[in-house]
Amino acid sequence: MDVITRPEEMAARSRQIRQQGRRIGFVPTMGFFHEGHLALMRMAARHADVVVVSLFVNPIQFGENEDLDCYPSNWQRDCNLAEQEDVAILFAPDRGAMYPDDFKTTVSVAQLPRYLCGADRPGHFDGVTTVVCKLFNLIRPHAAVFGEKDYQQLAIIRQMVRDLNMGVDILAHPIVREPDGLAMSSRNSYLDKELRKSALSLSRAARLARQRFADGERDTGVLARELTKYIQGYPAARINYISFVDSRTLAPVEHADENTLLALAVTIGGKVRLIDNTLLAGTD
Amino acid sequence: MDVITRPEEMAARSRQIRQQGRRIGFVPTMGFFHEGHLALMRMAARHADVVVVSLFVNPIQFGENEDLDCYPSNWQRDCNLAEQEDVAILFAPDRGAMYPDDFKTTVSVAQLPRYLCGADRPGHFDGVTTVVCKLFNLIRPHAAVFGEKDYQQLAIIRQMVRDLNMGVDILAHPIVREPDGLAMSSRNSYLDKELRKSALSLSRAARLARQRFADGERDTGVLARELTKYIQGYPAARINYISFVDSRTLAPVEHADENTLLALAVTIGGKVRLIDNTLLAGTD
Repeated sequence: MDVITRPEEMAARSRQIRQQGRRIGFVPTMGFFHEGHLALMRMAARHADVVVVSLFVNPIQFGENEDLDCYPSNWQRDCNLAEQEDVAILFAPDRGAMYPDDFKTTVSVAQLPRYLCGADRPGHFDGVTTVVCKLFNLIRPHAAVFGEKDYQQLAIIRQMVRDLNMGVDILAHPIVREPDGLAMSSRNSYLDKELRKSALSLSRAARLARQRFADGERDTGVLARELTKYIQGYPAARINYISFVDSRTLAPVEHADENTLLALAVTIGGKVRLIDNTLLAGTD
Repeated sequence: MDVITRPEEMAARSRQIRQQGRRIGFVPTMGFFHEGHLALMRMAARHADVVVVSLFVNPIQFGENEDLDCYPSNWQRDCNLAEQEDVAILFAPDRGAMYPDDFKTTVSVAQLPRYLCGADRPGHFDGVTTVVCKLFNLIRPHAAVFGEKDYQQLAIIRQMVRDLNMGVDILAHPIVREPDGLAMSSRNSYLDKELRKSALSLSRAARLARQRFADGERDTGVLARELTKYIQGYPAARINYISFVDSRTLAPVEHADENTLLALAVTIGGKVRLIDNTLLAGTD
């Protein structure tokens, strides 16, 4: 595996790979790899000849009071894990190379960021679309893999790629979970044993919602009240949002149907903000 | 010359050309070609193996009271002129193909659009950067040519390309003028014989400013007052702005030096908005 840090070198390598007629599969990450990341890498490998993984903690997608400065990292472990997954190139630029002092450009998608995490985290998705646009231009992937855990991010990236004619196939990977149901996240490392228990409120609430939907409940107001009560039963859990939305437009829905997505954000122990989501008609 | 209207077909052709190892030179236009456009095409040909010209009157860069609906056009004449310049592909998509109903994405550059035309035309440059980003993604040029007449546009495109790592060489072509000095523009076709005289106020004011700079005048306040008076001597001319800016940052300057650009926008006959610019230390 090659580690590349200079953007121009990454661009040159990608040109070379493309000229050889080989397909590039790309997985953008912020590092501190868990099984979820590795699953994305394997998916990329199934759809390409060369897998490129970026490791970049993107400052412009963090809010002022968020965890940019303490975002977990373990460089050597990440390198070893990526190498084991047959990643060909790990692209790890530094912040100054990605955002020189006179950086002035933003790529933004309208409407979709209004809902869910976008309402909580102003500017977050502009930071995501801008860095993904940069990474796509440097790496020139044929396909890129995103996790469904960040469902809104996935929807926004798809919209950007379509609108800007980027010509990149966007592949979605289902949420990868711990054996007890907790959705994998680098931020889970912030949880001590006690908080870890309250973190289960998200996946369990999602399961409860699927059950109630299977039982015939279609009123999302009723479901939201039930889930609120359920999650409030966990002492360290504070609800950021419980939203029932159309899985294609992310717009809130009152009457649930087979396209309805439940999206949750819950802050555990006053500082660890976790998200999860499920199709109400889904099995997981 | 091939005429391509479908974006996907354009993208496929560009992939093919690139795989053959040939360089693509690109000139984005809104059509109604004049000698200025043809000069850009020739410049593209000098820097590439295959010249692609786009002809697309981009709705999102026009303001509500601007001339989108009456922008001049002459399809057959444009085809003939492009063919004579050895353009390989004329890309002429329709509006619906470029902006489907659910289009939601904007590429914007901060700061630079605040000055000059950006102050007059809110949203204009977001429309320009968004469409150029789309066209670059579809056409994947190695180099693209822009005219210095739209100096602010050129500066903004350069910033976007650098910030988003687009990997396109941006080439600037000097302003192409009529024998009497009027900068070429498709909008000159709106001018009748009488208005055409007042349109000369721009290039003549620019020449006057160069002379005064050569004579030693460095106070841009003094220069602005002199130019205002000069242009007001033309009966049909209404000044939009007379600005002295740093040619790199576009920020206004009080004391002129060799990097100072004079940029002018003047509306002729109450409806034809023309622009021009010159380096004060320049010869034209």
